[in-house]
Amino acid sequence: MTSSDRLDATFAALADPTRRAILARLASGEASVNELAEPFSMTQPAISKHLKVLERAGLISRGQDAQRRPRRMEAKPFADAAEWLEKHRRIWEANFQRLDALLDQLKFNESKPKAKKKAGPKH
Amino acid sequence: MTSSDRLDATFAALADPTRRAILARLASGEASVNELAEPFSMTQPAISKHLKVLERAGLISRGQDAQRRPRRMEAKPFADAAEWLEKHRRIWEANFQRLDALLDQLKFNESKPKAKKKAGPKH
Repeated sequence: MTSSDRLDATFAALADPTRRAILARLASGEASVNELAEPFSMTQPAISKHLKVLERAGLISRGQDAQRRPRRMEAKPFADAAEWLEKHRRIWEANFQRLDALLDQLKFNESKPKAKKKAGPKH
Repeated sequence: MTSSDRLDATFAALADPTRRAILARLASGEASVNELAEPFSMTQPAISKHLKVLERAGLISRGQDAQRRPRRMEAKPFADAAEWLEKHRRIWEANFQRLDALLDQLKFNESKPKAKKKAGPKH
């Protein structure tokens, strides 16, 4: 997967309220599929489908306990997605501030009384 | 739209490389549809479709020039999405560090020579 493919998968996986709630739960510690299904009053297969999407996107992985097969959150894709957003927000902000300063300068120039041209010798 | 609906729309809109490239372009200043279509060698209708998705998600808006109808980036959904990601990454990190400290403590306890029980009077 290229880093662009990974961002596609990460953002697509995040575009669902149940999947975000699952991630919010896993942020504070690993949990089994049953534990994850409980608060959502969803069937296990429905939850498993969401978990597959999250797993394919690399946002979660499986813990070591072979019987409980707990899911846990992986922080790297969170950091990568946040970095993409922050980078472009910063570029936008820098550009915005430049425009703002330019507008202030234009206003300042307009408000100044116009300097009269020195009357030079006519040729 | 609830804030959860807005996050759905934002993340879904971001899950596409062309739309991310359009946003990256708009981060450094507004641009007309023609200007946006150029680097992608895409037809105008194809670009317009992507722009509609971005517009519905509130990630872009239309500038004031009625003829060029330039599109410009809106920073708020970027900030909201990044905030969601960062919040849960921080919760995860705090939890991770707590676990790490716990493991260290367990290792430390194991490596300590076991204190012998004081021989008390037998009853």
